[in-house]
Amino acid sequence: MPRTKGDHEARRREVSEAVWRVLAAHGFGGLTLRAVATELGATTGLLTHYFPAKRDLVAYALDLLAERTASRPRREAGEGLSAVRAALLDILPLTAEATASNRIWVSSWDTALADPALSDDYGRKYALSRDKLRDLVAAAQRLGELPPGDPERIAAGAQSFVLGLVVQALFSPTAFPPQRQAELLDDYLAALS
Amino acid sequence: MPRTKGDHEARRREVSEAVWRVLAAHGFGGLTLRAVATELGATTGLLTHYFPAKRDLVAYALDLLAERTASRPRREAGEGLSAVRAALLDILPLTAEATASNRIWVSSWDTALADPALSDDYGRKYALSRDKLRDLVAAAQRLGELPPGDPERIAAGAQSFVLGLVVQALFSPTAFPPQRQAELLDDYLAALS
Repeated sequence: MPRTKGDHEARRREVSEAVWRVLAAHGFGGLTLRAVATELGATTGLLTHYFPAKRDLVAYALDLLAERTASRPRREAGEGLSAVRAALLDILPLTAEATASNRIWVSSWDTALADPALSDDYGRKYALSRDKLRDLVAAAQRLGELPPGDPERIAAGAQSFVLGLVVQALFSPTAFPPQRQAELLDDYLAALS
Repeated sequence: MPRTKGDHEARRREVSEAVWRVLAAHGFGGLTLRAVATELGATTGLLTHYFPAKRDLVAYALDLLAERTASRPRREAGEGLSAVRAALLDILPLTAEATASNRIWVSSWDTALADPALSDDYGRKYALSRDKLRDLVAAAQRLGELPPGDPERIAAGAQSFVLGLVVQALFSPTAFPPQRQAELLDDYLAALS
């Protein structure tokens, strides 16, 4: 029987799932063709069809991370401080899914910092994320829910706060359960207001 | 001529320097016997004498990181809020040396998260660091330089803030030069006070 486009898509999804599970368990340091093949129950030979070289597998994993991050579910939030809070909560590892995704992000920093072009690309991603946050902060200021002050500077501080909280929660999940993370974020926002 | 203890110590220091330079440039993902040998101008054969297996090299690198972190120069600071500020400034990548060291720490997170025992060990290290910060916060509260509130919770927030600032400064050194990092930290401390 001829293989259809549907077969191809289904296999691609399986490969993506396997890459994701390897990353969530072993990070980029543990991302090998052999590990993905084991996860997939396939031969490494089949995988070299998709990823001729190790760097193709890493590039695929980075794309997958960016794609899943972009399409992740977001909290509904109105305007003002509640929108700032929702955007920051969306980053934190409050669910198993968000924990896996954050663990993969943190793990990818080693790969990114070792490659100047990729490092610049990450720098741009974080700058973009700060820009979005800056606009939300400025809107909250217009509503009088945050005091005046450079919104860009407030956004840079808030992004620092959540990124560091992510790292601590990944290493100490018992000390930083979801409720504690939310409390710490609310302390932070209360201090700003 | 017989090799002396001094020769041995000198060679060990050379190996440490080479491992450090490889980590600063390529992270744990780029830490290989070959890379260290190239940096040292030696053969990989010589290095297998020190590191029979890859995991011995990784363990050595992690020890080296812990040792250099423990012995790094610290700011002189009195008591109270100025001691909290000094402890947080000591973490930030404000010098080339502190940038290299932070870059290696961030890179090591991939390795640490992939190994449950090492991950626990990192969790304990960060908990210890929060405990020290908590004591400084409590002292600042006793002096009336910080308002009342659970010092442990304030320390967890402050540590999150600086860890995330480290990550952002590593990826966007132009957006986060030393002065900007210090300003953001001072904003954070001002909001607490």
